[in-house]
Amino acid sequence: MKPFKLASRSDTNKDTLVAIPMPERTLFIGQGYCTIIAGPCAVEGRDSYLETALFLKNIGAHILRGGIFKPRTSPYSFKGLGREGLAIMVEARDLTGLPLVSEIMDVRDLDYLYEEVDILQVGSRNMQNFTLLEELGKLKKPVLLKRGLSATIEEWLLAAEYILNGGNPNVILCERGIRTFETYTRNTVDIGAVPLIKHLSHLPILVDPSHATGKWKMVVPVAKAAIAAGADGVMVEVHPDPDRALSDGKQSLTPDNFRKLYEEIEKLAALDNKVIL
Amino acid sequence: MKPFKLASRSDTNKDTLVAIPMPERTLFIGQGYCTIIAGPCAVEGRDSYLETALFLKNIGAHILRGGIFKPRTSPYSFKGLGREGLAIMVEARDLTGLPLVSEIMDVRDLDYLYEEVDILQVGSRNMQNFTLLEELGKLKKPVLLKRGLSATIEEWLLAAEYILNGGNPNVILCERGIRTFETYTRNTVDIGAVPLIKHLSHLPILVDPSHATGKWKMVVPVAKAAIAAGADGVMVEVHPDPDRALSDGKQSLTPDNFRKLYEEIEKLAALDNKVIL
Amino acid sequence: MKPFKLASRSDTNKDTLVAIPMPERTLFIGQGYCTIIAGPCAVEGRDSYLETALFLKNIGAHILRGGIFKPRTSPYSFKGLGREGLAIMVEARDLTGLPLVSEIMDVRDLDYLYEEVDILQVGSRNMQNFTLLEELGKLKKPVLLKRGLSATIEEWLLAAEYILNGGNPNVILCERGIRTFETYTRNTVDIGAVPLIKHLSHLPILVDPSHATGKWKMVVPVAKAAIAAGADGVMVEVHPDPDRALSDGKQSLTPDNFRKLYEEIEKLAALDNKVIL
Amino acid sequence: MKPFKLASRSDTNKDTLVAIPMPERTLFIGQGYCTIIAGPCAVEGRDSYLETALFLKNIGAHILRGGIFKPRTSPYSFKGLGREGLAIMVEARDLTGLPLVSEIMDVRDLDYLYEEVDILQVGSRNMQNFTLLEELGKLKKPVLLKRGLSATIEEWLLAAEYILNGGNPNVILCERGIRTFETYTRNTVDIGAVPLIKHLSHLPILVDPSHATGKWKMVVPVAKAAIAAGADGVMVEVHPDPDRALSDGKQSLTPDNFRKLYEEIEKLAALDNKVIL
Repeated sequence: MKPFKLASRSDTNKDTLVAIPMPERTLFIGQGYCTIIAGPCAVEGRDSYLETALFLKNIGAHILRGGIFKPRTSPYSFKGLGREGLAIMVEARDLTGLPLVSEIMDVRDLDYLYEEVDILQVGSRNMQNFTLLEELGKLKKPVLLKRGLSATIEEWLLAAEYILNGGNPNVILCERGIRTFETYTRNTVDIGAVPLIKHLSHLPILVDPSHATGKWKMVVPVAKAAIAAGADGVMVEVHPDPDRALSDGKQSLTPDNFRKLYEEIEKLAALDNKVIL
Repeated sequence: MKPFKLASRSDTNKDTLVAIPMPERTLFIGQGYCTIIAGPCAVEGRDSYLETALFLKNIGAHILRGGIFKPRTSPYSFKGLGREGLAIMVEARDLTGLPLVSEIMDVRDLDYLYEEVDILQVGSRNMQNFTLLEELGKLKKPVLLKRGLSATIEEWLLAAEYILNGGNPNVILCERGIRTFETYTRNTVDIGAVPLIKHLSHLPILVDPSHATGKWKMVVPVAKAAIAAGADGVMVEVHPDPDRALSDGKQSLTPDNFRKLYEEIEKLAALDNKVIL
Repeated sequence: MKPFKLASRSDTNKDTLVAIPMPERTLFIGQGYCTIIAGPCAVEGRDSYLETALFLKNIGAHILRGGIFKPRTSPYSFKGLGREGLAIMVEARDLTGLPLVSEIMDVRDLDYLYEEVDILQVGSRNMQNFTLLEELGKLKKPVLLKRGLSATIEEWLLAAEYILNGGNPNVILCERGIRTFETYTRNTVDIGAVPLIKHLSHLPILVDPSHATGKWKMVVPVAKAAIAAGADGVMVEVHPDPDRALSDGKQSLTPDNFRKLYEEIEKLAALDNKVIL
Repeated sequence: MKPFKLASRSDTNKDTLVAIPMPERTLFIGQGYCTIIAGPCAVEGRDSYLETALFLKNIGAHILRGGIFKPRTSPYSFKGLGREGLAIMVEARDLTGLPLVSEIMDVRDLDYLYEEVDILQVGSRNMQNFTLLEELGKLKKPVLLKRGLSATIEEWLLAAEYILNGGNPNVILCERGIRTFETYTRNTVDIGAVPLIKHLSHLPILVDPSHATGKWKMVVPVAKAAIAAGADGVMVEVHPDPDRALSDGKQSLTPDNFRKLYEEIEKLAALDNKVIL
């Protein structure tokens, strides 16, 4: 028996379906839905975020992403707009009707993030921040759990187990690349993790090709690979002007390239009878 | 300027097309052709190899693989049938009209392998066997160059450069998984290597999902991912009775699963306007 | 210029000396002092902890370690005694006069851990828990910062920079092994990190051979290697009865083996004119 | 039972002692002898090699190293002087009485290298060049088997097994760093490999801190660590003028620094009652 009892497929033959209720309709992740999450790495300002959000909505993105607390390797890097950024994201939700996903780094932010954000993201650096996982287990809010930079599949599923064991069944996994010796790319996407997770677990799995590769030219091919391998969707960075992004510009798609990405994924989803609403 | 001058895309804007002349028709790899190489890990006996070869031919495989010299971690493992195995492969070629790829481990075998094998494979353990690369550079015979277990993209292209620099332009790259900390899978397929190689080089690139994952259930999803990411084809292990294989049974497809693989790849190739003859 | 401005040796030619004031005497780490931290992985009970503490004190250990909040990969594993364990550690300090080091996992525990613990440990899973680092930067309490499981040297020093930049100069680094493909050992000690840190930074560096190797037979040789490479000390796990330990028994030294370790380190310290009080 | 039957300690409780007979005296490796191998990365010219050899002999080095066939990642790098370099090495042996170690890359060179070289080195890239290992197994000549760049301990011992199984008991292992994600150093020395090999096998093990770190400033500390961890010796690069070296200058010790290394190792060897003749 696997050590991740609740995350394990052996517990249930039914794939988890995560529901995100929105005023106009309920959005679903998993069970044959193909989900596209998009947005800039960090919320940098009101106008550009709203503009990007509208564009993404029009193309067909399902969920808006945006960092308001950015975990930065250096204490001297831009760390996000904080609650000011959150207000901008909320405005974008009102404008577009799209749900929001944003990263939580500190249990002390949970109270108000819980109110405003539709999916709470746990970043790769916090995948084993067990006190944070335990708090998220007490809620019913969906959690997007990124794989740690050098986490094994088993450790990742055990991190999910912390949340499930707390009573929150709404866990979405997200492969975002692991650390290897390769230096041409930022990280190495473990594409095999997609079928392996599908084999071991009933939880939905997304792939983030932006953080994983660090190069926008690789984002579309790797996103296509993710869908072809069976992922339940992708999470990509889109910026209206990548060259001026305050963080992760090199890996951000322009709006035009996001359109291409969307079209490619649509075709692949159709091939596997996946629903892309 | 990149250190791999001849392998670099900057040298030429035209993708390499490797031609494999056969009595009935010439087979091509690269430039929009989608190539499927299949066969058992090792040639184990005449009847089973010929039977498998016919089956693969009927489904649509383009090239027959088969190990006759197997690089084995332990000196006590089955190391292949050697020249006896080669005779069986040649018989299969006569029977099916399909070209042969087999691994060369020792420069001293070059003379007769050169005569009988259509593509000489350099395995991952020999990617930096520079004396072998230099000998292969003196020929025109196509070389399938597998990526070393922990080779960077740059080292891999520099290994190709050894062959190109010797005067042999017919190099086909093959991603077969790199070594990471993950223990559920045998290796980790670096799917990003596909678009990266396409960006850096004009050489064709295949993916071997069998060795890379070590689990047959992951072979079809990862093969699909490879094609979706832009690979020029895949190389898979097929065995009529995987449970009885002398090596790599766990990662071998049954003939039935190979048929499914073929159908899936056909659909993906069509989506990207690739030719799968 | 290095991105870790305050942690960088270029800022100052003087090595950091961390002082830990105790009633009887002030203990120092760095600048030629050779420090030995010892204790069980987790505090499991009053009697065994006090007995171990007395033994360690008698042999010559300088600091007592003991986990009261254990970061465990699985939610089902023993997670420490919490505040009950802390009370036992405090009793051991009163009994032995030795300072205490214990891990902090949650910023919300800081208030009372600050009062009772002499060195706050940040575990490898929290090396990039930036909100925790920022809180620790506001104090003057010494922080033992373990290297993340797959952290580069630069990321590690930038994590230290968070604390230094907050205003807390008392950072002690601790190499505890990185994750590699090797499966015989739990992790791989990066012994080169010791001279490299000494070259790049003025901060003291310890090595934890217990977590790094996962095998008690390797602890003494690797601890010796650490001192010979220039480390400012070691941190080891000692358990009165390793076979019955609730966590990490396989890597714990018996009291007798700890005595041998102490004697070996004493000889090596003398060779390099290091002070082992 | 371990898969490396002959390399395994379980086969014999006696450590292997490798004897290298020289006109004046027989040199031994293993069983408590502490051996220092030194020389430039590549033999670059007669005068500088002879001068370096004499210097090394005077300080106390036991064996001269020198590359005459250099495995180079790029086909455009300096690849050694070949047989001309060998003649220079032989002259140095006549001059100093010290035995020679040099790398063999091609089985076709075996005939004459066998005659002239006292220890045949198998480089990390050829650790799994099984046809080479099989040829070396047919001889009695000592073989210095470097660990592959990403080889597990088990694979390494199985490579040794190929040689032992062929009938040649004279295998010396050499840890030279493994590939990890760290970019400040060339490779990561796996110091734990030393006690682990001592635990698993009866074969002697050396450490090469020059290739492993890629930085001369780290060579002395890591060499000390190796001896403290129980290694049977070290293999270091020394160059009369590192800034002008045709390969690996950055990791080469000056003659003065080699003297310091020798003195440090002498003290550590004495501590563990090792013989450094």
